[in-house]
Amino acid sequence: MSVPVIQTFPVPAGDAAFEKTRRHLINQFDAKIPQDYIIARHVIDKPPTDVTEIPRSCGILSAEEIAITEDYDAVDLAKAIAQRKYTAVAVATAFSKRAIICHQISNCLTQWFPEEAIKQAKSLDDYLDEHGHTVGPLHGVPLSLKEHIAIRGRGTSYGFLASNHVSDNDSLLVSILRDSGAVFYVKTMQPQGLLHMESDNYMGRVLNPYNIHLSAGGSSGGEAALVALRGSVLGVGSDLGGSIRAPSAFCGLYGFKPTANILPMQGLLPRGFAAGLNIQPCVGPMCRSLRDMDLFMRTVIDSRPYLKDPLLVPIPWTGTKTSTAPRLKIGIMAMDDMITPMPPLTRAISWAQQRLDARPDVEVKKFTPYRAREALDLTRRIFTPDGGVGFRKLLAASGEPEHLLSTAVLDKATDSSHVNQISMLRAERDDFRREMAAHWNEQDVDLVLMPVFVGPAPAHDTAIYKGYTSVWNLVDYPAVAIPTPLVAEAKGVEKYADQQDIGVEDQYVRRMYERADFAGASLGLQLVARKHHDNLLFGALRLIQDALELK
Amino acid sequence: MSVPVIQTFPVPAGDAAFEKTRRHLINQFDAKIPQDYIIARHVIDKPPTDVTEIPRSCGILSAEEIAITEDYDAVDLAKAIAQRKYTAVAVATAFSKRAIICHQISNCLTQWFPEEAIKQAKSLDDYLDEHGHTVGPLHGVPLSLKEHIAIRGRGTSYGFLASNHVSDNDSLLVSILRDSGAVFYVKTMQPQGLLHMESDNYMGRVLNPYNIHLSAGGSSGGEAALVALRGSVLGVGSDLGGSIRAPSAFCGLYGFKPTANILPMQGLLPRGFAAGLNIQPCVGPMCRSLRDMDLFMRTVIDSRPYLKDPLLVPIPWTGTKTSTAPRLKIGIMAMDDMITPMPPLTRAISWAQQRLDARPDVEVKKFTPYRAREALDLTRRIFTPDGGVGFRKLLAASGEPEHLLSTAVLDKATDSSHVNQISMLRAERDDFRREMAAHWNEQDVDLVLMPVFVGPAPAHDTAIYKGYTSVWNLVDYPAVAIPTPLVAEAKGVEKYADQQDIGVEDQYVRRMYERADFAGASLGLQLVARKHHDNLLFGALRLIQDALELK
Repeated sequence: MSVPVIQTFPVPAGDAAFEKTRRHLINQFDAKIPQDYIIARHVIDKPPTDVTEIPRSCGILSAEEIAITEDYDAVDLAKAIAQRKYTAVAVATAFSKRAIICHQISNCLTQWFPEEAIKQAKSLDDYLDEHGHTVGPLHGVPLSLKEHIAIRGRGTSYGFLASNHVSDNDSLLVSILRDSGAVFYVKTMQPQGLLHMESDNYMGRVLNPYNIHLSAGGSSGGEAALVALRGSVLGVGSDLGGSIRAPSAFCGLYGFKPTANILPMQGLLPRGFAAGLNIQPCVGPMCRSLRDMDLFMRTVIDSRPYLKDPLLVPIPWTGTKTSTAPRLKIGIMAMDDMITPMPPLTRAISWAQQRLDARPDVEVKKFTPYRAREALDLTRRIFTPDGGVGFRKLLAASGEPEHLLSTAVLDKATDSSHVNQISMLRAERDDFRREMAAHWNEQDVDLVLMPVFVGPAPAHDTAIYKGYTSVWNLVDYPAVAIPTPLVAEAKGVEKYADQQDIGVEDQYVRRMYERADFAGASLGLQLVARKHHDNLLFGALRLIQDALELK
Repeated sequence: MSVPVIQTFPVPAGDAAFEKTRRHLINQFDAKIPQDYIIARHVIDKPPTDVTEIPRSCGILSAEEIAITEDYDAVDLAKAIAQRKYTAVAVATAFSKRAIICHQISNCLTQWFPEEAIKQAKSLDDYLDEHGHTVGPLHGVPLSLKEHIAIRGRGTSYGFLASNHVSDNDSLLVSILRDSGAVFYVKTMQPQGLLHMESDNYMGRVLNPYNIHLSAGGSSGGEAALVALRGSVLGVGSDLGGSIRAPSAFCGLYGFKPTANILPMQGLLPRGFAAGLNIQPCVGPMCRSLRDMDLFMRTVIDSRPYLKDPLLVPIPWTGTKTSTAPRLKIGIMAMDDMITPMPPLTRAISWAQQRLDARPDVEVKKFTPYRAREALDLTRRIFTPDGGVGFRKLLAASGEPEHLLSTAVLDKATDSSHVNQISMLRAERDDFRREMAAHWNEQDVDLVLMPVFVGPAPAHDTAIYKGYTSVWNLVDYPAVAIPTPLVAEAKGVEKYADQQDIGVEDQYVRRMYERADFAGASLGLQLVARKHHDNLLFGALRLIQDALELK
């Protein structure tokens, strides 16, 4: 039996064998869904643009399940379980139910395994009963995991049908989270080859819960939609070019990309991940409160993962407790030197700037962008050093069709596959890193505040330019997406101040702005600190929390 | 006019054009040496085996110059200058004079520039006169630099004649040291292509001052000979596979290889250094006292180099002030599982073990070696991913002959030049790092004490196996060579306990032991800590300083 899921914009079809396999995967998924967790057909057939009210209104969740999933952040939920207000089983059940509802309206899941979750929760309840204390800071808190994060006995893929396999072991991150009491119940959608800033693959396409004609972003788009719909209180995404920050911004969430080698990546990507030679991917939390990000970071880092994974740098986590300078210097980068952000983003930046300006303990400055085009070009060459050959081989292996956003990347890919070329990419990267450091020092700021993306959540298949986020991967600076209380106005209300484009990319973005209706779309901003200044970033966030109306 | 230099073992000759160029370089060097700094010809023609007494006995240095160069470590020298016991000019003059003496008996220098040094020293003296305080912690302390460390206006090479060029700018490290008051007066010898554990290149071969028929080691062999002969109080070497630790051990010095990305490498190697993709080189101090190493590390790290070079990890330096566990766990690794160390080294390990065993605050354990052969093989593949093509091209560019120790490496080099192969090398490296971490955790030690090399200083052209040091580069653990008061006995006195070799490499080393006379050769040991535990390593060194009779 097939469970209907809202899909507003199709993904391309592959060959017959591919279609058969992917149908089989989806049927396997659907077969586990109990009849009474299935949303009424008419809701799916004629959905509202904003689907965020459906989980609570669809009649599937009890009042307690609604309370559990809506009234707590992870910190409070952990406290409620530790204080025995709720059992871990009740919490796992509520989130499992809600997650499968969320899936039907956003296509956010790749896997759903409530039985395992409830079994794990039961053993945590038993532990608490027996010992009178929790196993760790995440005791009973359900965590959602992006599909490529390996967990023992579950399927894992890297966004290709051909890469689908069962993991024998927990990745180090999962094992740390498990030891801290986290409960796992779902894995979430990611794009083809983990390469897009949207989330479309052989399982379909993730929709933005606030506007299903827009994307939830990517590559951690399944997480973003699920957390926004409160099918998860705390999700784990990953970021190589903006993959945590963009979907978080598009769905009104926090999303943190730490400096690389702070959180363990062991077991999260295929052996021999070529892009990682020069830009290192990282995992990070996606959630609805600052203190939940802090909880996640603290829990993982306090476990001293560097003793097991010596790739990690042992900098202790002080997070939101980090003391900052008496006067914090924040540089505002309203735009880079390549693409003018869409008008709602420009408004959001002005709004933030005014509010920060009013604070006596913040000095607001203008931050001049640094060589956005060169950074983007270098990033592109680093991401696909083999010219895209390996990517296309993996598609061919299962007859998987090439998605439009894959083609947009692969068609520009150039071959730099010889070790001397890779070494020169490293040299260019290091030059850029030193130049950016000098540029940053010259501007004399502690942090930079800027858009996450050139616009709010993009219309499907239009998120081409990742430069606002990917530059911080290139230089490996920690960066966090923060939700503002602002949303985009209805189509036609807000206009560009300057009607003249500054290049073909800018022109493309302006055209996309004219075409889509972003009404109600979340407006997220990005706060960036120097490499390894992750603690300072969190200390600063606590300081400016009120000014920016942050949770 | 050609200044004679002791050379006990020739380097191979190149083609006519090459010989002409290298002769020209040497003549340029010689032309700057004043007649009264030249050692009596009969000393050079009939040198003693141990040349360490020559600098003080040759009659070129005044009593004060002997005192300046022999009676102080860098800490005391900085103090003496700050307290105006000596001017910086007097110190720069004394070390410049002594250095050129050392060169004639060990061939340790590539460049000698006393005029620049004295000019720099003069300006420091003026500053102190005018301001009443020093410019920084190294005010007036002469530092010797390995040839490849770029300093503005001076020649720099990477051990190939063809790579010789003039540097326009100070490397970041040099600029930090200069700002701290260090005076530069020499650059020192390194091997062909920086690749050997000895120091033989187009400028000749560095001799071990304690026994000129043995090598001073490499690749920082010029530094080691110069510091051992007290032509430098504090040298800067670099280490990719043992290049600081081996020469330090061979010449009775301290030599510290920190975790990579602690000290800046900007401007020290050619752009696009392929080996560095998977094993990162680092610089470090070579000297005669623990506190001098500490001074060097503290000076550089306190300058916050990570703000200029964001490749660096901002871990503060606490060094010898680092507090350690109440009972330090030291694992003794008397040998790896591939090559039995020569008998004097086995004796040195036993000596150290007994002395540590006697301390109540140290728990001595046995440390089981971990897959030495696999580590060495992986290191080899990482070092020359292009199969040695680039190396041989650089030789051909100037008609430079391939030295025997280059051939030993290049003939084993295999091609891994495609990005997919480089990525798999990265994966193998990371696997090995995680396995070593697990192995180390299982043994439950804070530090490992072991030999630096399979023997004392090797006879010329015989240092083939680098596994005892290079494994710590592969996993990027900080490791320090420490001098013991012990020396090797005369030929034939000490024998292997076990007369059975454990493989061809072990056989080779046993044969080398039978052939050479190591009488009087220094016996250095190596202390290793986990990655990024550089501070712990120094804290521990202070603790065990007395037990091991360390300075």
